[in-house]
Amino acid sequence: MSSNVPTTGLQLRSLVTKDGKLELSLAEVPVAEPGPDDVVIQVEATPINPSDLGLLVGGADMSTAKASGTKDRPVITADVPPPSLRALAARLDQSMPVGNEGAGVVVKAGSSPAAQALLGKRVTALGGEMYSQYRTLNIQQVMELPAGATSRDGASCYVNPLTALSFVETMRAKGGTGLVHTAAASNLGQMLVKICQKDNVPLVNIVRKKEQADLLRSIGAKYVVDSSSPNFMEELITALAETGATIGFDAIGGGPLAGQLLIAMEAGATRNMKEYSRYGSGKETQVYIYGRLDMSPTIVPPGVGFAWNLSGYLLTPFLQKAGAETRARMRQRVMDELTTTFASAYTAEISLAEALDLETLHAYNAKATGTKYLINPAK
Amino acid sequence: MSSNVPTTGLQLRSLVTKDGKLELSLAEVPVAEPGPDDVVIQVEATPINPSDLGLLVGGADMSTAKASGTKDRPVITADVPPPSLRALAARLDQSMPVGNEGAGVVVKAGSSPAAQALLGKRVTALGGEMYSQYRTLNIQQVMELPAGATSRDGASCYVNPLTALSFVETMRAKGGTGLVHTAAASNLGQMLVKICQKDNVPLVNIVRKKEQADLLRSIGAKYVVDSSSPNFMEELITALAETGATIGFDAIGGGPLAGQLLIAMEAGATRNMKEYSRYGSGKETQVYIYGRLDMSPTIVPPGVGFAWNLSGYLLTPFLQKAGAETRARMRQRVMDELTTTFASAYTAEISLAEALDLETLHAYNAKATGTKYLINPAK
Repeated sequence: MSSNVPTTGLQLRSLVTKDGKLELSLAEVPVAEPGPDDVVIQVEATPINPSDLGLLVGGADMSTAKASGTKDRPVITADVPPPSLRALAARLDQSMPVGNEGAGVVVKAGSSPAAQALLGKRVTALGGEMYSQYRTLNIQQVMELPAGATSRDGASCYVNPLTALSFVETMRAKGGTGLVHTAAASNLGQMLVKICQKDNVPLVNIVRKKEQADLLRSIGAKYVVDSSSPNFMEELITALAETGATIGFDAIGGGPLAGQLLIAMEAGATRNMKEYSRYGSGKETQVYIYGRLDMSPTIVPPGVGFAWNLSGYLLTPFLQKAGAETRARMRQRVMDELTTTFASAYTAEISLAEALDLETLHAYNAKATGTKYLINPAK
Repeated sequence: MSSNVPTTGLQLRSLVTKDGKLELSLAEVPVAEPGPDDVVIQVEATPINPSDLGLLVGGADMSTAKASGTKDRPVITADVPPPSLRALAARLDQSMPVGNEGAGVVVKAGSSPAAQALLGKRVTALGGEMYSQYRTLNIQQVMELPAGATSRDGASCYVNPLTALSFVETMRAKGGTGLVHTAAASNLGQMLVKICQKDNVPLVNIVRKKEQADLLRSIGAKYVVDSSSPNFMEELITALAETGATIGFDAIGGGPLAGQLLIAMEAGATRNMKEYSRYGSGKETQVYIYGRLDMSPTIVPPGVGFAWNLSGYLLTPFLQKAGAETRARMRQRVMDELTTTFASAYTAEISLAEALDLETLHAYNAKATGTKYLINPAK
């Protein structure tokens, strides 16, 4: 089998130059020889997550994006405004590979029995640089997919499933009894609905449109609040008072929503207080911002009480702190419920070259809820 | 001695009515008989802290304030706008006593030996309702002042000293090695400068005016950054990178400052990073908002990294969690350093009636840094 593996493969690259240009292109890179505990994966499915877009388009102004190059080797260029450029100082003039996770077939394996055992198997990987035709990784970074699972089934085994599971783990660690989630109709949001159903955790889902509310109700969500409702705050406070949820995860980041969550949690907690305290309910509230679909500043008004917390949230530090046992338990659950709880839906499956088609890029870069692209580098 | 204690005394009251009126007045209230473990204090000095003003003027629009009543029994009325009124629902139509802390002489004592031992002594108390001529409190709520200390010396033994000490305790508990403080020229800020000097904790002081910077430098502050400087952010980042401070306490609350602190902490932490990470420095940063001198919303832009935390902060929950031993140690230090580290400066000493003089009220309600009023109900 290893005799069929070419010596080079295409890899998507993102470069930001010192003079403020973003350049996206396909590079032909060597396929790294596997060490004893490594495997070479022919990548067949790798999703475009919001976290990938951060690295891919950096702080570029994509309204200035232009296409050049050829059909097989397209090139996209765009301007990076000076404020973004300063924030990107550490990556300037370095051609960066992209793609956190993906799935494919092991086409070459190192000499160790554990590596050899994976030869010919379909695996999922969290390894970075997955927008590549071939990717060499240590066996610790891959998991064998269950029998019958396709690479499409296994493409998104890490970022969304582990993030959704980590919300519930975090809530339990903090002694919480319910959760709130924004942008709740996303792939991740749907996973969270299913996890919370199974685990009997009250979950308040916040969406922006009626269709999204309908979608979530159709998969069994009990509490769905539409932020476009004229009674949004009242409905949110009622749902929070009813569920007792004081821990929220927000994917929007910018604008008033995170602050509204904190206000509504505090209002839910004070609703039944009998005695006035100028220090509010005293109930600890926590909103984690785990995404920035809105890049404008986060707004926190007074009225949030005095025991509020607003924090950034990333999966990786959570997993580091959680310990090996918790990590293994979480991963096993993803494998066990791969095509049910953790099924992802994709808008389109595109090749590496198609990922650099200007129109397609604008479509996936819009990060619209319910829109998710899958790259198939083998296509 | 107890024979001289009158049966009633004046007490400052704050009332917000259902129809949206604030009324401040002096009520004649009975002096409560002391139980076995209680003492009756003739209050001689009680400060007007920002935390008292919250209860005193509530959410009233003080530009509508009017004076009435007599010279001895002045009355202030003002309108409370509907949004504030909703937040005050739990206190409507209840006449509230005010004043967190103060000092005075024990003029009557309960039967227990511990209470009797305090008779005739000068004590400081954290008891609420201190804007009163007489206040009956359990001996657990009072501390005897050191020999020679006046009530003025001992009026502010709790709120500011314990809050300033709690900042350093909190920093240590979180494994921090330096602090940032805003509105740093305040009485509390000056205490913090002295504490940090003694304890060898690097402290970055943020002030808004050159005179405030000069004042802090004159008492030995090493890092003072003036937010009115055109190079504010650069100077702040430099000070934070140099001190390694990633924990801040902010008394302003509203506006951009808390977000600027988080950005500067992250920039300080990334300044020496060798490799680009789109997830920032990974260094955990924390800003606590412990006051709201600015009632506008808090603004947190992107650029704060992903391990940032912004939280409300109150002394009381800190003390509850800290445990009896830590509390006792902190209180002992306040007594030991009462006229040095924890000396307070007052703009004026006023009577209860003068506290309800319209011009005086506007002056102390402005909460200008370096302006602090002391009420002497015995005056």
